[in-house]
Amino acid sequence: MKIVIVGAVAGGASAAARARRLDEDAEIILIERGEAPSFANCGLPYFIGGVIPKRDDLLVAPKQRLIDRYRLDVRTRTEVISIDRKQKTVAVRNLETDESYDLPYDKLILSPGASPLRPPIPGADLPGVMTLRDLHDADRMQEIVATADAAVIIGAGFIGLEMAENLVHRGLKTTVVELADQILPPWDAEMVVPVAEHLRQNGVELRLADAAESIEQNGDAMQVRLKSGEVVPANLVVMSVGVRPENTLAVESGLEVGARGGIQVNPQMQTSDADIYAVGDAVEVRHFVDGSPIQIPLGGPANRQGRIAADHIFGRNSTYRGTQGTAIVGLFDMAVAMTGLSEKWLEAAKQPYEKVYVHPKNHAGYYPGAESLTIKVLFHPDSGKLLGAQVVGRNGVDKRVDVLAVAIQAGMTVYDLEEMELAYAPQFGSAKDPINMAGFVAAGVLRGDQPIGHMANLKASTEADRPFVLDVRSPQEFAAGHIDGAVNIPIEQLRTRLDELPRDQSIATYCQVGQRGYLATRLLLQRDFKVVNLSGGFVTYQRSMG
Amino acid sequence: MKIVIVGAVAGGASAAARARRLDEDAEIILIERGEAPSFANCGLPYFIGGVIPKRDDLLVAPKQRLIDRYRLDVRTRTEVISIDRKQKTVAVRNLETDESYDLPYDKLILSPGASPLRPPIPGADLPGVMTLRDLHDADRMQEIVATADAAVIIGAGFIGLEMAENLVHRGLKTTVVELADQILPPWDAEMVVPVAEHLRQNGVELRLADAAESIEQNGDAMQVRLKSGEVVPANLVVMSVGVRPENTLAVESGLEVGARGGIQVNPQMQTSDADIYAVGDAVEVRHFVDGSPIQIPLGGPANRQGRIAADHIFGRNSTYRGTQGTAIVGLFDMAVAMTGLSEKWLEAAKQPYEKVYVHPKNHAGYYPGAESLTIKVLFHPDSGKLLGAQVVGRNGVDKRVDVLAVAIQAGMTVYDLEEMELAYAPQFGSAKDPINMAGFVAAGVLRGDQPIGHMANLKASTEADRPFVLDVRSPQEFAAGHIDGAVNIPIEQLRTRLDELPRDQSIATYCQVGQRGYLATRLLLQRDFKVVNLSGGFVTYQRSMG
Repeated sequence: MKIVIVGAVAGGASAAARARRLDEDAEIILIERGEAPSFANCGLPYFIGGVIPKRDDLLVAPKQRLIDRYRLDVRTRTEVISIDRKQKTVAVRNLETDESYDLPYDKLILSPGASPLRPPIPGADLPGVMTLRDLHDADRMQEIVATADAAVIIGAGFIGLEMAENLVHRGLKTTVVELADQILPPWDAEMVVPVAEHLRQNGVELRLADAAESIEQNGDAMQVRLKSGEVVPANLVVMSVGVRPENTLAVESGLEVGARGGIQVNPQMQTSDADIYAVGDAVEVRHFVDGSPIQIPLGGPANRQGRIAADHIFGRNSTYRGTQGTAIVGLFDMAVAMTGLSEKWLEAAKQPYEKVYVHPKNHAGYYPGAESLTIKVLFHPDSGKLLGAQVVGRNGVDKRVDVLAVAIQAGMTVYDLEEMELAYAPQFGSAKDPINMAGFVAAGVLRGDQPIGHMANLKASTEADRPFVLDVRSPQEFAAGHIDGAVNIPIEQLRTRLDELPRDQSIATYCQVGQRGYLATRLLLQRDFKVVNLSGGFVTYQRSMG
Repeated sequence: MKIVIVGAVAGGASAAARARRLDEDAEIILIERGEAPSFANCGLPYFIGGVIPKRDDLLVAPKQRLIDRYRLDVRTRTEVISIDRKQKTVAVRNLETDESYDLPYDKLILSPGASPLRPPIPGADLPGVMTLRDLHDADRMQEIVATADAAVIIGAGFIGLEMAENLVHRGLKTTVVELADQILPPWDAEMVVPVAEHLRQNGVELRLADAAESIEQNGDAMQVRLKSGEVVPANLVVMSVGVRPENTLAVESGLEVGARGGIQVNPQMQTSDADIYAVGDAVEVRHFVDGSPIQIPLGGPANRQGRIAADHIFGRNSTYRGTQGTAIVGLFDMAVAMTGLSEKWLEAAKQPYEKVYVHPKNHAGYYPGAESLTIKVLFHPDSGKLLGAQVVGRNGVDKRVDVLAVAIQAGMTVYDLEEMELAYAPQFGSAKDPINMAGFVAAGVLRGDQPIGHMANLKASTEADRPFVLDVRSPQEFAAGHIDGAVNIPIEQLRTRLDELPRDQSIATYCQVGQRGYLATRLLLQRDFKVVNLSGGFVTYQRSMG
């Protein structure tokens, strides 16, 4: 068995190692355009920022180890330039020597990855305008950063924002320009409001709903001209507006690709040619939750896909279950994470959903250092089946999103969140964990115990259908800020002041995060008022209206 | 509807709040022997240690709030002394005034908790010998600690060890005496070896497999005489050898209790009297995994049980699904956690199981601060269904145990662990998360890809059946310590040195944590050797033999 693997990062490297473990005698040739196989691409921004001090630390499976331990034929600085599917050969070029040769294969695995997009604006080809994909890019950026004063980052996705944090660490005045009116476009807008605020507080200049129109060289520096008219000087411009699957080899050899360019594969990771597999950021996969075709560049799925391709080559029926879209980004000691579908996705797909917001502490409030998390849970309005979740805060974000990711994998409902028996000691959680709290609220909505309303709907309401807005917080909290037009009756006084509430108008009640609002809702429902609790309370209001 | 609730911490308080939300008109009387309802009993050791500086922080739902918000009739410093089930009344005594009266109920909820055991050794009644249960105990201990030099803690469970940490923080020479030959008896012995070591390094004196035989007053201080003959001076002795369900009321009124004294309840938390419910640490529940009757004092389950009792009173069919035994304890920046069944439990119950150990980093190794975790997963040897898990390390322990707890709740298998799509960024995890790693190893065992052996079996092997022990680490690692009698062939040389291995004897291979051993196992299996990989490698060996 002769296996040729194109691309030696994540999916390709995993496929190679798995293939060796399954067959001591297979010939396994791992071809990599760059200088190193299996490098830590997620670590590149932190290498540039000096957080990861040693470049060698990024080489997670050094070439010699792959050769010595796995007996792989590793060819770096080598490119596959075409595939001859009939002959089952690939044409290969050594980028060092420019020598070319043909290589036969029994099975071919494509793991070419995705390349950063470079918007075709004037000046995009200036030498100080870069994208970040590999060690070579990182080396060059580090060189520029050493003497730079300012940077502009175009695109406020993962990599753009991680770069922003790291450039601020390196002392650069850093401006991030994003076309959308929010950072991190895969997340729902209200969930990333506190992160944007946190970035600004840490010195990142954010320009949302704006765009770079041109870049001009101006002596040693550049000038980035924005659509808004602003001109931002920079010694480094990083383009991080997204990636495009590297499908050239696939397209040129007639393999099927999806609408957005991803190589199409079956659950065994076979392309439209049964002897050619494709894995990683270059492929189109199915979303685990709703089965939609998607391209989500993520390291975990790439590794699993590589493993599955190797399994299938050796006659095993491993199948890829789809990508769930679990992702996290850490920014200046905050973290924001998601799993499953977002609300904007569900909206666009016109799928039915309900949602709740909770803002509990990450661990017992009585133990020092407790901080608020925000959890948004999206679920089916009938069955309660979990569809997606997003979490933002500081410590404990990664834990909660992982718990929710497993719950989605298991096909669980919001009722299961109520029951979860999670580890509790005061440093780590609460007897009612934030996950339980989200479950209580969501299940309460489905059981009819707690009809909820949403801030976005309140904002969109007209004079005619606007509810009576009841704030059940303390007068002090009310005075410090409240929803326009709200009437304040503290929860403690509500029972004796029911005559101040309308019988002929629906009531929307709220408190700071939702708990007193829940109690008010229960109370008023039992007194035959028409009432909803505004989910997430004033905290959600502030973010939604921001 | 008139509901009387006995005990206002955790389960009792949850039942009361839930009852009010379900019925605005119910009369709800919450009776508490102590001075405060709903205090944070898990915070008491940290209050004594000064970590939680303000006593008021421990009052999570202050009495006045319960009265004002929930319109509860809260009677603190009040005790229920008997139940008249025929008349449906309880006899109540006000501990402040000594006044007694009868109180009728429609439904009674018992949430009396569990009281610390006090072994009847000579001197156990000295004033400096204490147990820790409530705020009053904590106040007294804090007073003693202020002028104390030394403390002895009897019992190395959760509370004993949390107390030890906190007393060390307060500058006391602290000795913990434990009858078992390990700390934290619910855990498997090898999993807590690094925690015991960590406690010692932080100044805690541990006396395992020892016991206090007597305590004598000696002027201002006491002397604790151990079975081993050692005499340890102490100004404070804390008894933390376990708890006993407070079942007196239940027993005296003829309610059924289990073999170990726990009040017996159905899944709706009803006792053998349908009008009397019981919740929390005083009840016997079913273990979620195997259905055994158990008593596990945990805050989360107590709260859920309280909620369920209230639900059932108001005609809702909530049911308790059993307790899973998810628990965590943090000790000097280490953490050790478990969920589901332990190996010792499975052994004692003679249930079939297999186990694996992995020692991965808590997050990407290339990102600064990565530290090893140890994860032990117990699973069914045929189906792979998860039975239990234990995790020890520093950061990330709580996350992994919660993920495993949800997986057990969902009835997942080790194959599902392989597939989990958890949140990965270099600060938070790895593209192959520790959970995935555990899944890969366990599923590999079940698929026959990786037969494993266990250190305990190796230790127990006789001359006749002892395998050939093959160490595939580097010569440097081998020189620094290895299994007695092992032969060293580094993995990189194994393919060319096969003739040094026996064909007529089984081989047990190992490396540092298991990964090179896995590769060696795959290689040797394909060359027709009889081989197992010793699970967890040399790290597990060192702990198992310790």
